[in-house]
Amino acid sequence: MENHKKFVKFENKIVFIGFGCVGQGVLPLILRHIDIPSAQIRIISADTEGQIQAEKAHISFTVCPLTPQNFQQILDESLVPGDYLLNLSVNVSSLTLIEYCHQRGLLYLDACLEPWQGGYTDTTLSLSARSNYNAREQSQNLRERLGSGPTAVLCHGANPGLVSHFTKQALVNIARDTGVDFVLPQTRESWAALAQKLNIKVIQCAERDTQTAKPFKRINEFVNTWSIDGFVGEGLQPAELGWGSHEKTEPLDASHHGYGCDAAIYLRRPGTRTSVRGWNPLTGAYQGFLITHAESIAIADYLTVKTGDKLDYRPTVYYAYHPSDATVLSIHELSGRNFKQQETKRLLMNDIESGSDALGMALMGHTKGLYWYGSILSIEEARDLAPYNNATSLQVAAGVLSGMVWAIENPQAGIVEPEEMDFKRVLQIASPYLGDITGQYSNWTPLRNNLALYEAHLDTTDPWQFKNFRVV
Amino acid sequence: MENHKKFVKFENKIVFIGFGCVGQGVLPLILRHIDIPSAQIRIISADTEGQIQAEKAHISFTVCPLTPQNFQQILDESLVPGDYLLNLSVNVSSLTLIEYCHQRGLLYLDACLEPWQGGYTDTTLSLSARSNYNAREQSQNLRERLGSGPTAVLCHGANPGLVSHFTKQALVNIARDTGVDFVLPQTRESWAALAQKLNIKVIQCAERDTQTAKPFKRINEFVNTWSIDGFVGEGLQPAELGWGSHEKTEPLDASHHGYGCDAAIYLRRPGTRTSVRGWNPLTGAYQGFLITHAESIAIADYLTVKTGDKLDYRPTVYYAYHPSDATVLSIHELSGRNFKQQETKRLLMNDIESGSDALGMALMGHTKGLYWYGSILSIEEARDLAPYNNATSLQVAAGVLSGMVWAIENPQAGIVEPEEMDFKRVLQIASPYLGDITGQYSNWTPLRNNLALYEAHLDTTDPWQFKNFRVV
Ligand SMILES: NC(=O)c1ccc[n+]([C@@H]2O[C@H](COP(=O)([O-])OP(=O)(O)OC[C@H]3O[C@@H](n4cnc5c(N)ncnc54)[C@H](O)[C@@H]3O)[C@@H](O)[C@H]2O)c1
Ligand SMILES: NC(=O)c1ccc[n+]([C@@H]2O[C@H](COP(=O)([O-])OP(=O)(O)OC[C@H]3O[C@@H](n4cnc5c(N)ncnc54)[C@H](O)[C@@H]3O)[C@@H](O)[C@H]2O)c1
Repeated sequence: MENHKKFVKFENKIVFIGFGCVGQGVLPLILRHIDIPSAQIRIISADTEGQIQAEKAHISFTVCPLTPQNFQQILDESLVPGDYLLNLSVNVSSLTLIEYCHQRGLLYLDACLEPWQGGYTDTTLSLSARSNYNAREQSQNLRERLGSGPTAVLCHGANPGLVSHFTKQALVNIARDTGVDFVLPQTRESWAALAQKLNIKVIQCAERDTQTAKPFKRINEFVNTWSIDGFVGEGLQPAELGWGSHEKTEPLDASHHGYGCDAAIYLRRPGTRTSVRGWNPLTGAYQGFLITHAESIAIADYLTVKTGDKLDYRPTVYYAYHPSDATVLSIHELSGRNFKQQETKRLLMNDIESGSDALGMALMGHTKGLYWYGSILSIEEARDLAPYNNATSLQVAAGVLSGMVWAIENPQAGIVEPEEMDFKRVLQIASPYLGDITGQYSNWTPLRNNLALYEAHLDTTDPWQFKNFRVV
Repeated sequence: MENHKKFVKFENKIVFIGFGCVGQGVLPLILRHIDIPSAQIRIISADTEGQIQAEKAHISFTVCPLTPQNFQQILDESLVPGDYLLNLSVNVSSLTLIEYCHQRGLLYLDACLEPWQGGYTDTTLSLSARSNYNAREQSQNLRERLGSGPTAVLCHGANPGLVSHFTKQALVNIARDTGVDFVLPQTRESWAALAQKLNIKVIQCAERDTQTAKPFKRINEFVNTWSIDGFVGEGLQPAELGWGSHEKTEPLDASHHGYGCDAAIYLRRPGTRTSVRGWNPLTGAYQGFLITHAESIAIADYLTVKTGDKLDYRPTVYYAYHPSDATVLSIHELSGRNFKQQETKRLLMNDIESGSDALGMALMGHTKGLYWYGSILSIEEARDLAPYNNATSLQVAAGVLSGMVWAIENPQAGIVEPEEMDFKRVLQIASPYLGDITGQYSNWTPLRNNLALYEAHLDTTDPWQFKNFRVV
């Protein structure tokens, strides 16, 4: 047996809710790095996916989909105060579980604020009500209502999750490289002040997944390197972005929510039909989908500088996702089906032949233009590092593991977002699983190579305006 | 040697201009079905692609790119009255060659009205000037100016080309199947009257190419089953569509040209960024690119019914192209590069592993809903039928061959569009190379499965409105 460093000892139980792509990926990391006997880990899931892996590790596995009706009874039977509820499911309301954990004195972590089944496509709800902004506002309200208590880490996978810590590291690196005087920020206000001082106008979560499998993509099949249901769900939500103070004009299809922090806007269209230009170190200029993500709102809010009610500074923050090529085709097919999901889905795992996931934050507007900071992990490296993973799931699993360890080390922090955690500690734990962690400058801007074939209403006086990024 | 039917004897020379995908594909068909010795065929091309094939067939091959400056001298050296100029090039002005052929007494055929190099991306030209509408209007003016003379067949591949004949056959079949009284139309007016009588509101050129190769698609590579340059060129032209009399509202981004027949409008955006819903018998509901094509304008104009200047009837006609999956990815990548073409291109041919090209016309609005009529040709069938072809190129080659034979049989028809040719004769010649020629009804409409997640401004009172097809 390999000798892996145990970061913490956990005396109580860990109960997984959901054991799909991420759950299966993180289990070996938990067994390596958290000092807990297998007998104290349990899995509750909606199907038998991963059951064989669990049984090999001598971990109890129960198929029992949670519903609004049954969740309390099932969780009561499985968890006692001090235990850890690790929510890696889809179709289960995160907010419901968070409140439950607070009441029962349980640690909690998830990788996304999910609604109960059907929540993303409930047309009786307004677009705003189907947004991540709304989910986050509800979690903030919950935090206010519940007050301090056991730690519940929200949205701590890779993105959302690690990317918030990448952002902080990137700010520090840019300050260093551009000769800006600074002390390492210790508060939200000082991080925001540093971002303002560096003149960061845009922060893109710039991800390019080049993993490909054989067969590439069958007709009538949705292919992805992580949850198909999870991605389709968020892909049908409205596109959302943290809205920066440097932006001169709002998109015609944009709306404000009219309540809460107002750090973000949404577009009245799904992210799978919203495209933006971006840059990544693996393939250079690319086109990504502007998929709504928790970090787009949380980072924008975190880095906001206000004088009283007056907004002084905020970066524009959003996700520019180029999933695996077969996933791009799957979205194209899904769109042609009027979003009626394909009959089959395939999570790419052992069938992957090659490729990498480049996941980083691209910070733009400072004196050196664009700085991308993040993880480039190849499928070969991922396979060397841990079983039951592809490059994407391992980045997420590293985020989940590091968030769990931090929560065990800080068990009374209440409800926290990634921005509120210790970025150095988290990155220290996650890094061994992230392959090449790299920071790269580029002189790319969204105006590069613009042919001006069509009147595109670009703003050539400021390359970092959102209208320049948007593909229309 | 196999025994192939010779349709006509040609006593003069055939000179190819361009010998890429289509040229190489049609040569074996010409050698089989036109009675002409190899020594009387010559090829002038811009590169050495296909030279080995030509030499094997004992056909003279010259590398000499035509330019506005040199074309006359080069053609004068190669052609005498009565010869056939077969234009299968890109980057050479079709209109220039058409006029040249008229003056010199040469037969002529092309598969697309191409401009001189750079014409599609010349930003000193207006969008209207870069359109196929404009190219067609210029060809009509030329026809008026030049009057009768040797036959010049315009735009006669598969689409444009065969699809105009499919349209006629489809009209006849729908009339038969829906019990509508009719006599086989012999004039433009009576074809238009039949389409009106059948209440055809929309005619989509509905193409789904499922051919895939190994490797699927490399990064920084444009992959296609026919001309990469040709497709990128037309893909950057404005999207264009014949505009039907049943349409209630014009798209906000639509413009009229303000001159000529006014049968079509253009959108102020490239076809590669314009998507529409469609249906095909191979994969069902799909999303295609609304790429401008000659037939969209020509068929709409041909089927127009007017009383004096008053428009009584016209169908909406456009191309809904789902190219090969790797091509969809290539377009996505190209778009992310701000349309700066990828460094490498790959024409899929021997590397194709499987797939078919379903190319047909979907006529909608009649009492049976939708009728798709066309060719479904698999790569295996294509390889059985002729060398140097994939499924796509063979459909095109069948169109070129049949157009050439018709021109030789009708050598003094002047400048003609596909609509003006004898559809039965053309289809008779082309059919052996088209695999499964099939007509299928479907109850699909673009409103099918509409989730109404977003306010989409659909018209539920008439499924056949363009706004219902458009993906926004
Ligand atoms: N932050 C990130 O970087 C990141 C990345 C990937 C996934 N995620 C999130 O992590 C979560 C898991 O993703 P995944 O890729 O493992 O998804 P998956 O689709 O592979 O697995 C989902 C799991 O949830 C279970 N499940 C479904 N309905 C359930 C129910 N009613 N009760 C209990 N379990 C149920 C399924 O059985 C399955 O085991 C999702 O919320 C996803 O959005 C976050
Ligand atoms: N109607 C249809 O169904 C259909 C289908 C496919 C292609 N096409 C059209 O047919 C034509 C050929 O398509 P393809 O797929 O064979 O294209 P291709 O790119 O494979 O080949 C183009 C050929 O043109 C030659 N060429 C380029 N510049 C030239 C110049 N200046 N002088 C002489 N030759 C030159 C190249 O050397 C090459 O041989 C294009 O116009 C294309 O749009 C029509």
